[in-house]
Amino acid sequence: MGQGEDRLIERMGQGEDRLIERMREALPFGERTLLWSGDDCAEISAPEGHVLVTTDVLVEGRHFLTDWSAPGQIGRRAAAQNLADIAAQGGVPSAFVVSMVVPDNTDTDWLLDVVSGFGAEVAPTGAGVVGGDLSGGSQFSIAVTALGYAPHGPVRRSGARPGDIIAVAGTLGMSAAGFELLRTEAVAASLHSEEALGDWYLPVSTYRVPRPPLRAGVAAAASGATAMMDISDGLSIDLARMAKASNVMMDLYPQRLQEDVARLLPAARKTGKDAWQWVLHGGEDHAMLATFPPDTILPTPFRVIGGVGTVGQDTSSRIRIDGQPLNEGGWDHFN
Amino acid sequence: MGQGEDRLIERMGQGEDRLIERMREALPFGERTLLWSGDDCAEISAPEGHVLVTTDVLVEGRHFLTDWSAPGQIGRRAAAQNLADIAAQGGVPSAFVVSMVVPDNTDTDWLLDVVSGFGAEVAPTGAGVVGGDLSGGSQFSIAVTALGYAPHGPVRRSGARPGDIIAVAGTLGMSAAGFELLRTEAVAASLHSEEALGDWYLPVSTYRVPRPPLRAGVAAAASGATAMMDISDGLSIDLARMAKASNVMMDLYPQRLQEDVARLLPAARKTGKDAWQWVLHGGEDHAMLATFPPDTILPTPFRVIGGVGTVGQDTSSRIRIDGQPLNEGGWDHFN
Repeated sequence: MGQGEDRLIERMGQGEDRLIERMREALPFGERTLLWSGDDCAEISAPEGHVLVTTDVLVEGRHFLTDWSAPGQIGRRAAAQNLADIAAQGGVPSAFVVSMVVPDNTDTDWLLDVVSGFGAEVAPTGAGVVGGDLSGGSQFSIAVTALGYAPHGPVRRSGARPGDIIAVAGTLGMSAAGFELLRTEAVAASLHSEEALGDWYLPVSTYRVPRPPLRAGVAAAASGATAMMDISDGLSIDLARMAKASNVMMDLYPQRLQEDVARLLPAARKTGKDAWQWVLHGGEDHAMLATFPPDTILPTPFRVIGGVGTVGQDTSSRIRIDGQPLNEGGWDHFN
Repeated sequence: MGQGEDRLIERMGQGEDRLIERMREALPFGERTLLWSGDDCAEISAPEGHVLVTTDVLVEGRHFLTDWSAPGQIGRRAAAQNLADIAAQGGVPSAFVVSMVVPDNTDTDWLLDVVSGFGAEVAPTGAGVVGGDLSGGSQFSIAVTALGYAPHGPVRRSGARPGDIIAVAGTLGMSAAGFELLRTEAVAASLHSEEALGDWYLPVSTYRVPRPPLRAGVAAAASGATAMMDISDGLSIDLARMAKASNVMMDLYPQRLQEDVARLLPAARKTGKDAWQWVLHGGEDHAMLATFPPDTILPTPFRVIGGVGTVGQDTSSRIRIDGQPLNEGGWDHFN
């Protein structure tokens, strides 16, 4: 419709200018911002002569539930996910823009908490939140675009070579464990008291706001990483994507994942799930997954989890674990 | 939720890879694209050492109705709106990313038509559509981020000076007229036959896909425009924003707007509306609104519509028409 559009902002009980002003106060300007929000465009310095760009949309009821996450956590998560994409290219973030679709009955303070959480997650990186847009709609969603630059050149997912080591920085399966824990009623009930989470704090808080080691991304680029991506959909599926893009075979060493599994055993017992499934297939920890030449001294906190091999005639499965093809649920770790 | 998320794409009857592949085929790579969609980030060349960025979100039922616009037009409109923002800063577009929230029952061909329309609108500019994201949700929306650069430096809205001329490039009130025409049943019924629109073709097609003269933006910058923005909310409200940002008074010359009004008289008669209201207050034509030093030879198709004056003690109204304060509906053009 457009011309006849009801104005969300006015019905939220304060003038658009005032609401936008309060949002701006909660958002970092950014070290590379030449012109901030307020004109048709923002302007960002890019002295390297290139810019990285990535975008993600999070939808209430699909990517998060307002019953499970506080508004500040929803904002932090939206930022963290895009920060991980920039880091996974060997990049440093410079600027963010954010579009939100907001139901008319949304509480203004709730919305400002989302925005504040977003700003708080971005601020320590030196990047700015330089623009955005708001619309009414039936379902809350937040679309984020992040810009950045790659001081050592961007690391793509297609550069893994046979003989490289496979390394990861960050947790595996922790978000998936948190998701399952939140599905058990008692844990969900402790939403607003992080202390009450006790042993479940790490998985639940990782589900709510993934905290991958972002600086490991640019450190990996500096150390000569041959390929990199973040693990958003799960180690198995993302490793398969990297293997396909690089036309190689990837071998996982299960003993290198034992510690990840051990850390999740209490949560697995609590929920009746399998910790190995979480580690191999759980998404949204946004850990950095990278390959390096075999003699590389890995930057902290990368750790070896496998090796890159030559692809054979059978390309139906490009990932192996302990020498066996790994498909979803296809590896029997009890043997 | 995330971890338990139903996968929209799989339920749409084809694999995610295949759908994404079909979308990519419909999208331009872009002259400045170093690395396209497929990695965590795309990479865009920015040899000027800066980048412009702007974002907008369009929501079904708020900014457009699927009964009033074909899917290709929805895609074109989303692109055009962001192209106008880049142009209005004196910029040239380099890259786009797009996030869409898509209801589960959405027809795949409808969605591909939206994407194709978007790509078709962007392609002639030389920019690329370099990445995106898809999510399920209850209501269709499309969030667009555009990047660009300003070859003559960016033109902000805050630079208008007393003595400057006010000029506009593009139509005024045409989209508002189209909106009102579509609200009359007979015109809405001719949605799928543009020929059948007859006399209403220009306003209705402008409502569906605004077509501001984009190259006029960078031409204005080259000609020394002191301030510029696009008219998204209406001449009166956007001119007031420019006047406030520049701390000046803006005087409109009504005789310079007579032709805009005359062109809309048939539509005004058809709908019982006031063509002057459309010209002064109608939004979404996305015409370029700029100020220039008084001796400037205006680049085509800019035309003078007013002059910039000194702000007095009374800043309650910064826009005048024919010497009288102009507020919404506050000017009686019949006198």
